[in-house]
Amino acid sequence: MSAEKSSTSFRDRQERLRALMEARRVPLIVVTHLINVRYLTGFTGSAGMVILGPSQGILWVDPRYTLQAREQAQGVEVLEEKKGILKAAAVWLGKNGVREAAFEAANLSVAQFDLLRQEAGAGVSLKPAGELIEELRVVKDREEIEAIRSAGKVTAEVFAELLPHIHPGATENDLAAEIEYRMRNKGAEGAAFETIVVSGPRSAYPHARPSTKALQESESVIFDLGAIVDGYAADMTRTVFLGEPGRRQRNLYSAVLKAQAGAIRAAQDSAPAGKVDSAARRILAKHGLARYFTHSTGHGVGLEIHERPRLGKGETTCLRSGSVITVEPGVYLEGFGGIRIEDTVLVGPDGPEILTPAPKDNWIIG
Amino acid sequence: MSAEKSSTSFRDRQERLRALMEARRVPLIVVTHLINVRYLTGFTGSAGMVILGPSQGILWVDPRYTLQAREQAQGVEVLEEKKGILKAAAVWLGKNGVREAAFEAANLSVAQFDLLRQEAGAGVSLKPAGELIEELRVVKDREEIEAIRSAGKVTAEVFAELLPHIHPGATENDLAAEIEYRMRNKGAEGAAFETIVVSGPRSAYPHARPSTKALQESESVIFDLGAIVDGYAADMTRTVFLGEPGRRQRNLYSAVLKAQAGAIRAAQDSAPAGKVDSAARRILAKHGLARYFTHSTGHGVGLEIHERPRLGKGETTCLRSGSVITVEPGVYLEGFGGIRIEDTVLVGPDGPEILTPAPKDNWIIG
Repeated sequence: MSAEKSSTSFRDRQERLRALMEARRVPLIVVTHLINVRYLTGFTGSAGMVILGPSQGILWVDPRYTLQAREQAQGVEVLEEKKGILKAAAVWLGKNGVREAAFEAANLSVAQFDLLRQEAGAGVSLKPAGELIEELRVVKDREEIEAIRSAGKVTAEVFAELLPHIHPGATENDLAAEIEYRMRNKGAEGAAFETIVVSGPRSAYPHARPSTKALQESESVIFDLGAIVDGYAADMTRTVFLGEPGRRQRNLYSAVLKAQAGAIRAAQDSAPAGKVDSAARRILAKHGLARYFTHSTGHGVGLEIHERPRLGKGETTCLRSGSVITVEPGVYLEGFGGIRIEDTVLVGPDGPEILTPAPKDNWIIG
Repeated sequence: MSAEKSSTSFRDRQERLRALMEARRVPLIVVTHLINVRYLTGFTGSAGMVILGPSQGILWVDPRYTLQAREQAQGVEVLEEKKGILKAAAVWLGKNGVREAAFEAANLSVAQFDLLRQEAGAGVSLKPAGELIEELRVVKDREEIEAIRSAGKVTAEVFAELLPHIHPGATENDLAAEIEYRMRNKGAEGAAFETIVVSGPRSAYPHARPSTKALQESESVIFDLGAIVDGYAADMTRTVFLGEPGRRQRNLYSAVLKAQAGAIRAAQDSAPAGKVDSAARRILAKHGLARYFTHSTGHGVGLEIHERPRLGKGETTCLRSGSVITVEPGVYLEGFGGIRIEDTVLVGPDGPEILTPAPKDNWIIG
């Protein structure tokens, strides 16, 4: 399903990182977060680490991945190591006279750090790098956007196909399985997270998991789903109602839908992330629903399902053209049920674009 | 699908941990590995941490999980924290006059450690705990064994159902999707790892992922699959041949099957893990195949797909009654293909028991 990837995008990412490192006075970085290894080199194996310096680029892998790494990795030399890749990289630092190396403090365990320090030797000074690569990843390049667009398309199509299967008697589990099966059949690598299908009073718990509960007449059902294509995730939520909703239900749905539309409109280049959140909150407050909206409005999405930026209260990080985020306000009323509506949204030069194009108005089923 | 869990098993695990802590002179432990949090308390959320001391047992969660934690967690007090659970736990250590706390060095990042140290204050001495809980987890209790047994049963049943779908023209991806769909339909929470279906020359790569390649006549196909039930994984591999295998293919299959049987026989209470590995290797060596067996013979399996013990060369850790391991010798011939046969095996008081009961003799299809 994936288009052939150009090697230039990976080399571009490495050059952008080198420029950022220079600006931050980081001479050399040890990349242990596997997602960042993939982002920089294209290598998709389950173990590997990179050292990147002004003129160095090395990827260490164990023998399971040597062939794969040589095929996939761009812009770096691939070294095979049988007895621990972290140790090998540490020894390399010591032997090559490196004085200062930065590490990913959020993605290196204390045990790994101790090994790194010990094997590199006292001559190498180790410092936290800050989340440099995560910072780069906030702005997606063309290939990344295309991957997320494909993932969003699969996600929306699967939901459209699922609609006829949503009826009283179907269980949450069965529908979740059906969703993930259809994603795979459409060429997705899988689900980006455990698909959520929760119904009735259970929908009042934002993070409930699907159960063997069967859907019933006059219940709302929340579907939260996302496919992975080429390593990139989409994330979408739709809420439907089985039967004829009451007035309260209609009002709640309409308020959440308006809050979502308002928040999406706020997702502009250079807008602080907190502004998207406050747009959703303001509209829900107008409907007297602010206190039922118990989580933040969204998050970045890409190689990881939760990335920067967080779209929460007072968040000052600015969105940029090329950022991809979720916009997902919801209200949760204990004993009654919940409603959440979510899209994956690209912040484009000409405004926001929804990448999960499934309808939101045909929410009444049966 | 899950039977009601008794609260006693979680309290038992906490008491076993307290006894081990006392023996190792660990006064109090900060548990940040989520799998260990689940093992100790039963809490299944995606964020939470525990402090356990001689008379203390606290689980911190954020507001998303308060209700769920209060329902699920056994033997611990549940505290809700909005602004960072690690920080809250660190502050608790400082305020409660704790002098020494052990942490999980393999599951605490350098950034988390710095936060913990800073917020706990200089009065609290932090030391690596060693992998105490991982040690306990090597011997499964009755409920854990039942969960793995259920997962193994689902895994074997799904493979049996899949057999009629295996034919030239079916793609690796489609078969993998079919497997995962059927797992879910049988009540599994999902697949314990990305299902492997690799065929023909691709089967020579032990860690290849399913692709859009269609199966062809006269190819071997490796299926590596495992369901999760109640959080516990099973792990099974079967190799089949499409058409009439040649003599070499038959000899290879027969040698791997014998190696697996010999290794399973060696999986006895009190046997060093390395003995299982050497049993497989010895039999393959007899057939001149030792050098094509390029990985270790297996690993523990439970809440994680790879746990202790590792069944590798010279491993001296002893198996114990209640250990659950995989036994999975294989041979990989570049350009020709691979064969691997794997079961999840319970080390019982009366000898090994296979928990993934799918046949291994009907390997020729069509």
